[in-house]
Amino acid sequence: MSSELRRGRARYRATVEYDGTDYHGFQVQADKPTVQGALERALADITSGAVRVVGAGRTDSGVHALGQVIGFRLAWRHSQDDLQRALNARLPEDIVIRELALAEEGFHPRFSARSRAYRYTVLNQPLRSPLGRRFAHQVAGPLDLLAMNEAAAALVGWHDFATFGNPTRGENTLRQVMQATWGQAGHTLFFDIEANAFLRRMVRTVVSALLLVGQGRVETESVAALLAARERRQAPPPAPACGLCLMQVKY
Amino acid sequence: MSSELRRGRARYRATVEYDGTDYHGFQVQADKPTVQGALERALADITSGAVRVVGAGRTDSGVHALGQVIGFRLAWRHSQDDLQRALNARLPEDIVIRELALAEEGFHPRFSARSRAYRYTVLNQPLRSPLGRRFAHQVAGPLDLLAMNEAAAALVGWHDFATFGNPTRGENTLRQVMQATWGQAGHTLFFDIEANAFLRRMVRTVVSALLLVGQGRVETESVAALLAARERRQAPPPAPACGLCLMQVKY
Repeated sequence: MSSELRRGRARYRATVEYDGTDYHGFQVQADKPTVQGALERALADITSGAVRVVGAGRTDSGVHALGQVIGFRLAWRHSQDDLQRALNARLPEDIVIRELALAEEGFHPRFSARSRAYRYTVLNQPLRSPLGRRFAHQVAGPLDLLAMNEAAAALVGWHDFATFGNPTRGENTLRQVMQATWGQAGHTLFFDIEANAFLRRMVRTVVSALLLVGQGRVETESVAALLAARERRQAPPPAPACGLCLMQVKY
Repeated sequence: MSSELRRGRARYRATVEYDGTDYHGFQVQADKPTVQGALERALADITSGAVRVVGAGRTDSGVHALGQVIGFRLAWRHSQDDLQRALNARLPEDIVIRELALAEEGFHPRFSARSRAYRYTVLNQPLRSPLGRRFAHQVAGPLDLLAMNEAAAALVGWHDFATFGNPTRGENTLRQVMQATWGQAGHTLFFDIEANAFLRRMVRTVVSALLLVGQGRVETESVAALLAARERRQAPPPAPACGLCLMQVKY
């Protein structure tokens, strides 16, 4: 009998939505507000002893999530609905647990994930927007959506994304992108990208390179060339965090 | 020659968008952040002496605007585009001047307005939403949209709205409502209401009464009955400010 079972702890998984504007990213940091920190504080408040939360994606400072997935172990004698309600009552208004269930045996939020889907939102209008500013990056000039989609197509498949992101210690930089497409609704442009996993800063750096194509500042082919170069220092600086949202983690 | 002309001041009108979350309403108050105060500060920063801003609608604390209209007099020797840019560069990120032009002779933002259009947004889902919370009021249980639209129809026309709002000093409580309809997109419900003018708290009190109908807690006819009663104390408390947005002022 494992020590976990002896202590009566069950393994839970939960889907979390958050407005990342006021957080220094998902992952716990000393003395800075983080999403993981807020979740662990809510859990500590309903149980005895510390509970460690593991997230599927370590979203950066200012990045949002509609479908972050977390896992944790907890001794809880009431229903799962009661647990979700108890946590949501303790979480700040910019974080909510959308779904909560017992996790299957061997489930790990990060290692069990098959893919992650992110959306980057661009507000393509001359003026900044007070109502849209928290969740979109405003770009003033015209954007060539066709060219941006053509350039994005070069990213689909298995590639070495060393140009576009920072590996964490020991990781390689090979990733499989399943989807990378731009859509439009009025002045709002959406970039939807799904991959088995992402390097740090990868989505925002890809978006930045694609926006340069859309603005006609570089050739459409330059994105494929950046990919082939596999050199981090060739990449443009990442697009602002506010436009990025972790939409879904698939298992 | 008027003293205004002698001082070289021209009359301007502008359309303003703001996220009202962090303001104590539009109208200037001592020691509290207001939208008018922020606009007057930006104007004072580019001119010598105080500039008074007049708004078409005195939105309450926490209420937003996409199309608030303001007027002011200013001595400015450069183009209108330059003025708009200069002001937007000085305004905080939750306020922006969307349009700016010279006002016609005799124009007054409030008294010249023919009508105002407001939208109230309801997020009809069991859980609060971190991404939607600033601009929508979340309502958990089912809502009968048909009944809400039926009840809203009773408001259209000339009526005494004494039940639904507070007149400012000396005002009567007669108002003409041109439109009052609910629409839906997914879990989001929109209440669009247009009237020649509104009493203070009128839209939010109307929404509150209509939500009670939608929840089946009162009869559809109760809204017409409240209207006929002309008694402020019979009204339910106003719906939260976050859901309300001044969309347009028509002249």
